[in-house]
Amino acid sequence: MQNPTFPSCDERSLVNIEDLRARHPDHWNKATAIRVLALDAVKAANSGHSGMPMGMADVATVLFEKHLKFDASQPNWADRDRFILSAGHGSMLLYALMYLTGYSDISMEEIKNFRQMGARTAGHPEFGHAAGIETTTGPLGQGIANSVGFAMAEASLQARFGKKIVDHHTYVIAGDGCLMEGVSQEAIGLAGKQKLGNLIVLWDDNGITIDGKVSISDVTDQMARFEASGWSVFSCDGHDPEAIDAAIAQAKQSPLPSMIACKTHIALGSSAQDTSKGHGALTDDTLIADTRTAYGWAHAPFDIPADLLSEWRQIGARGAIARQEWEIRFATMSGTKQAEFTRQMSGETPKKLSAAIKRFKQEASEGGKAVATRKASELALGVINSVLPETIGGSADLTGSNNTLTPDLGTFDADNRKGRHVSYGIREHGMASAMNGMALHGGVLPYGGTFMVFTDYARPAMRLSALMNIRVAYVMTHDSIGLGEDGPTHQPVEHLAAIRAIPNMTVFRPADTVETAEAWELAVQLDGPSMLALTRQNLPIVRTEHKTKNLSAQGAYILAEAQGKRMAILMASGSEVSVALEARRILENEGIGVRVVSMPSWELFEQQDEAYRKRVLPAGPVRVAVEAGIRQGWDKWLCGERGNWKKADFVGMDSFGASAPAGELFEHFGITAEATAQKVRDLL
Amino acid sequence: MQNPTFPSCDERSLVNIEDLRARHPDHWNKATAIRVLALDAVKAANSGHSGMPMGMADVATVLFEKHLKFDASQPNWADRDRFILSAGHGSMLLYALMYLTGYSDISMEEIKNFRQMGARTAGHPEFGHAAGIETTTGPLGQGIANSVGFAMAEASLQARFGKKIVDHHTYVIAGDGCLMEGVSQEAIGLAGKQKLGNLIVLWDDNGITIDGKVSISDVTDQMARFEASGWSVFSCDGHDPEAIDAAIAQAKQSPLPSMIACKTHIALGSSAQDTSKGHGALTDDTLIADTRTAYGWAHAPFDIPADLLSEWRQIGARGAIARQEWEIRFATMSGTKQAEFTRQMSGETPKKLSAAIKRFKQEASEGGKAVATRKASELALGVINSVLPETIGGSADLTGSNNTLTPDLGTFDADNRKGRHVSYGIREHGMASAMNGMALHGGVLPYGGTFMVFTDYARPAMRLSALMNIRVAYVMTHDSIGLGEDGPTHQPVEHLAAIRAIPNMTVFRPADTVETAEAWELAVQLDGPSMLALTRQNLPIVRTEHKTKNLSAQGAYILAEAQGKRMAILMASGSEVSVALEARRILENEGIGVRVVSMPSWELFEQQDEAYRKRVLPAGPVRVAVEAGIRQGWDKWLCGERGNWKKADFVGMDSFGASAPAGELFEHFGITAEATAQKVRDLL
Repeated sequence: MQNPTFPSCDERSLVNIEDLRARHPDHWNKATAIRVLALDAVKAANSGHSGMPMGMADVATVLFEKHLKFDASQPNWADRDRFILSAGHGSMLLYALMYLTGYSDISMEEIKNFRQMGARTAGHPEFGHAAGIETTTGPLGQGIANSVGFAMAEASLQARFGKKIVDHHTYVIAGDGCLMEGVSQEAIGLAGKQKLGNLIVLWDDNGITIDGKVSISDVTDQMARFEASGWSVFSCDGHDPEAIDAAIAQAKQSPLPSMIACKTHIALGSSAQDTSKGHGALTDDTLIADTRTAYGWAHAPFDIPADLLSEWRQIGARGAIARQEWEIRFATMSGTKQAEFTRQMSGETPKKLSAAIKRFKQEASEGGKAVATRKASELALGVINSVLPETIGGSADLTGSNNTLTPDLGTFDADNRKGRHVSYGIREHGMASAMNGMALHGGVLPYGGTFMVFTDYARPAMRLSALMNIRVAYVMTHDSIGLGEDGPTHQPVEHLAAIRAIPNMTVFRPADTVETAEAWELAVQLDGPSMLALTRQNLPIVRTEHKTKNLSAQGAYILAEAQGKRMAILMASGSEVSVALEARRILENEGIGVRVVSMPSWELFEQQDEAYRKRVLPAGPVRVAVEAGIRQGWDKWLCGERGNWKKADFVGMDSFGASAPAGELFEHFGITAEATAQKVRDLL
Repeated sequence: MQNPTFPSCDERSLVNIEDLRARHPDHWNKATAIRVLALDAVKAANSGHSGMPMGMADVATVLFEKHLKFDASQPNWADRDRFILSAGHGSMLLYALMYLTGYSDISMEEIKNFRQMGARTAGHPEFGHAAGIETTTGPLGQGIANSVGFAMAEASLQARFGKKIVDHHTYVIAGDGCLMEGVSQEAIGLAGKQKLGNLIVLWDDNGITIDGKVSISDVTDQMARFEASGWSVFSCDGHDPEAIDAAIAQAKQSPLPSMIACKTHIALGSSAQDTSKGHGALTDDTLIADTRTAYGWAHAPFDIPADLLSEWRQIGARGAIARQEWEIRFATMSGTKQAEFTRQMSGETPKKLSAAIKRFKQEASEGGKAVATRKASELALGVINSVLPETIGGSADLTGSNNTLTPDLGTFDADNRKGRHVSYGIREHGMASAMNGMALHGGVLPYGGTFMVFTDYARPAMRLSALMNIRVAYVMTHDSIGLGEDGPTHQPVEHLAAIRAIPNMTVFRPADTVETAEAWELAVQLDGPSMLALTRQNLPIVRTEHKTKNLSAQGAYILAEAQGKRMAILMASGSEVSVALEARRILENEGIGVRVVSMPSWELFEQQDEAYRKRVLPAGPVRVAVEAGIRQGWDKWLCGERGNWKKADFVGMDSFGASAPAGELFEHFGITAEATAQKVRDLL
């Protein structure tokens, strides 16, 4: 057979497929099974990305065959190595590996249904679609940033439960896109500082992006860049199994996080090799036929010869012994410790939490002290952190402002893996993405803080928390113009609306210390992510009654009933609940009966049955909502549900804020009790 | 006088204030004028950041005295050097410099009113508050990322108008926070690739962040990191004027972008020096008094001795000669060229634009060809780019998908500064921030594209476009589940709502080629930023009548009137307008009169007078909105304005999308003409 000629990429040498096949025939066949499955599935779907799996098949084969600790029959084994496909568009690499090694969720039928409705084999790996998909990737840079959280969670659990029970690596395949995204720098910086020796990134150094060569947009020496942030760096020919094996073996020895630059050819062996065309879907019949010929692959589409499949299945079963040994070690732990490990990994919360929160609420309510809800959050976290040893808090360099550090946490770092508070640095996005990784790893319940306006920086990762529906708590303080003098760059205005817009995200905007504790009680038990919007400024206690029942769980509730005939309903959240109560006092003095509804969480209110929602917000009277943010979304409660648009109004923001003391800003923007009362009078 | 003892920061040597004063007394006095103004203003405001101006005063003094090309009396001189305070929390550094050098907008009164309502001296520098503030900073990393755009704009204008007219530098002061934010990596990578020799970053290397030492969260060797991305790097003692001068002089010689690591002491000379306390507001009377003593500064608060002020004012006037020489050179250009330069810098659009767009619309309407609006955008850009030589387009590595490249643009890079399309790389955030810089520089009208879901990545910079109200056009394609197989990570669902939430941002979601051209005609003339939400999939021409008038300028308009009695109004945007038209056809066949309102831009519709809005959306009939996004915000039009909540409904998304072919997804999520028609039937 003639070796077809391959277009060369000037930065790398020509590759000789025949030579690769001849030198390592067994390896070649295994890796090529991945390549042809990617080609076949993309062809069948008529969309997807063929070239990345074709280019990285050798690296992945060596990793799975020689290094990755896993047992395909037990994809949820707690001490498995984690494999993160940060370059998520190469999803067929992952699906092919899962099918070949025998993950039961990924059958050949699934491979054939790649990218079709209802398939587990979505266009990009989707967490929850199949056991063995560790995280949802596709938005570039997220996987590598998740992986830092995975590695931190591992280190934390190892410190808490011992190396016999927790001792694994996190491997990441990342592409040029991952490394160009800014979040990768935040991840690299955090991992370097944290000396995460259990983290190994395999960079698919193929020199190609969608628009052409990497060099049209970047000249970065990635190895120097990683090294500058405290990583060990290695490189290898990404098609030479011995070189790959040696590089991974070296990386495993490093006490620092490691990056291995794997020089590869995208779309290896096809006429699209080393081109941006090779990045996308290769669907041309001739191209595919020629590539199969070059591979020496004579089998039909989706046909993996039985002996080859058997070899792959043995790889998938390779970790069974290690897993069984682990189970024996696990069984030797005390029953209490076993139960605690299992509880933490499963995300169950201990029963005593509820009582502790109730006690805290009662004291807060009776103490009656006006504090900022960010401070209330710290106090509530004091209770939660003492009951839940799996929490790991942190802040993006605003620890004192976000109030995320409770006294007994200690700082998590290379010298103290038992510490439970992370100095994330000025890295909101990296923090959020690392928290996703922690939550996905299991055994850790992450929360992290910054100013609420900087949810904009963290947003891509927050969206993934929501898409994966994982338990991550975002502690977002300085939640309005109440932030004051720092001005409009630091004052959230549209952010409540923007975060509420994300499906699956539960937003809490508690009105006082009691509601803050309720929000935390819910946040640590929800199936999905939550954001707590917390004030900088002090707020009076509004929940002087109903201290123990978690009323926030219903999302909205009647905080103060009208005296006499109800002529208006005031709805408010957070710092504006006390504004609404004051407006009510003014109006009641004028003989106008006013109900105040506190709405700490729209999402939870929406989940209540219609009867309850109707009871809280009956049709009829005048309605005014008060919130120091924009109106967007409030119309649903003002008129959309059972109100009347002619009888509804809103007190809040419709522009950016300004730099001035907070009190003056609330006056300036008209978010006051008197302005609220006047709206009611106008409507009546 | 005894030299007070200063707490040391282990990574840097002790500093001897007396020695600094003695060695360079003139320099010391000038720099100390900045320091005490910062101390005094922060003390008066009882908030702000004293330490950064105190630490960087020496660097800034040398820059302004010896290098920065500026004329304080003409802050808008086109060929001035640009000075960007990326570490915007140190705003008093900028305000002090502006006051001292004689910018008329920053009087002593303004300094005294630092951070007060209505003052130009906001907590963070706000573009538009005073001539001389080049950009709004505060959200960390934005200034350094803007600066790349400034430098690119300069390079582009230089290529177009010649070095005699355009030849200046962009100087940036950036702190550790700026460099930890991921966007800085995107900026560094882009600048390095673009070989922006006109860009010089002065890094305030003080080793301190809010939470403590930088080392608690980062171990990055920043000089190595910049060097890895193709920068020249230098370092200097940030308190030694000769060393600073030499470093800047060297940097100016480099053909590459330069970073100078300026080793400084935050809050120099105070008892809070080299501590995180020094980062914030120093308001303690004793501390301030002791610091003044250490400085040898015997003057009252806000009192700058006349002779010293006079020296500073001479610095402010230093550039007048250069400016006058420039004006002479400018006057020697041809009148046409002068007018064109002035037009481009002012952002006026040429009169012929309107006729060209009208012609294009007429042809598109009559051609009647169904194309995706992303393709329509490319076609419209073909017209616009030929009429407006100041446009610079680009894409974050999705050029072929975002359709941002028109045939005659050429690629902007180091070898072709006349090129007008930028390969931004996989850097949505850096792209958006660079576009802000271009728009702020003037003479360039930037637009850039990515998938709409990745507005999440660009959001912090998009918010700043809006806060500054500058003309930047975001070309966001693949604007719904119509994206198809790539799945939920790539399908925007909440993004229209989230971007509409940003004040000052105009969102266009055009329905066909005609509306797309109208959106572009408006986007390039608006005072503020805009986003075009464009489809991947083909859309039929819906604007077969009213071809020439720009109906999109009204935000919403009657596209198709009910035949006979109007029983329902269907509202839709973008790809769903044709769905609404088809639903209308179905319903009219059943004898139900239906008006279809196309709503390409909510923001522009809101700006219309009430009479027009009422004419388009009169009270009364059943209303259904159709949009392949979430409902949030639609209630305003469905019931909040003059509808009736009992008679309104919505066809759209209420969850994340899925991975499947687009057509199947629209069926699956029920966004179809039949589903829309059924909603109308149900309501009637």
